[in-house]
Amino acid sequence: MMHEVRILLVEDDPSDVQLTMHALHRNNLANDIQVVRDGEEALDFLFCRGNFAGRAWDHPPRMVLLDLKLPKVNGLEVLREIKSDPRTKTIPVIVMTGSREDQDLARCYELGVNSYIQKPMDFNQFVEIVKQLGYYWLVVNQSPPAPAHPSS
Amino acid sequence: MMHEVRILLVEDDPSDVQLTMHALHRNNLANDIQVVRDGEEALDFLFCRGNFAGRAWDHPPRMVLLDLKLPKVNGLEVLREIKSDPRTKTIPVIVMTGSREDQDLARCYELGVNSYIQKPMDFNQFVEIVKQLGYYWLVVNQSPPAPAHPSS
Repeated sequence: MMHEVRILLVEDDPSDVQLTMHALHRNNLANDIQVVRDGEEALDFLFCRGNFAGRAWDHPPRMVLLDLKLPKVNGLEVLREIKSDPRTKTIPVIVMTGSREDQDLARCYELGVNSYIQKPMDFNQFVEIVKQLGYYWLVVNQSPPAPAHPSS
Repeated sequence: MMHEVRILLVEDDPSDVQLTMHALHRNNLANDIQVVRDGEEALDFLFCRGNFAGRAWDHPPRMVLLDLKLPKVNGLEVLREIKSDPRTKTIPVIVMTGSREDQDLARCYELGVNSYIQKPMDFNQFVEIVKQLGYYWLVVNQSPPAPAHPSS
């Protein structure tokens, strides 16, 4: 059976990566996570190119957990590219950001983000929020069916 | 202070309305819910017309909980109209449906649904799912800012 990625975690801050993985592990939601550290790598993964040229289009991740402040290509641009391409637009994207800017919030919704979460400052709250979102998107929410005939 | 609606519940089945309200009440998430029974009334509410002509554009609901099988205007059409109008497209729409059709699932994501949930058959599971989604969308998720200068 092919290796399937359930969560694509796009995050450059090592301590946020560690904390997110910790929270998902603690709640048995940590299977099959792919971590990428910048926006370009995220797009390479999702569009099956570069280091991920061997990936199959018909196995999209069940969710993308996306930071906004990212090296190379920022999170807003990553979101825009995902949501403006019919091959990727149905993939649930959850922005999780330290930004407190109303402008980022508004822009993400205009671009079609599925959900927007502010990273809590507090350790315990961070763990709780990641647990809630992992459970919601992997257990409660029904992901879109895999594309049958993706054009590339 | 103006009355604000936090949840617009679009559901024609009286027992599903009752069950949803029950689950939200039990978890203190039931303040300020507006129930409408068909797709036309849902659109009237969201577009501030008909019986809702007095509503203000700058007080959109924090989420729309949308059934698919609805009288007058079906749920897919309601979703399409919400997500194709810049005045309403940022409002989070969660489809909750009895449909088990992959076609409905795919179509909703293509139209830009924020989340898609299958109604559980079981009473206790139904209550649990509504609790999870209410908590996620009203507490964990950050709603879009109200439109500053809506054009009408």
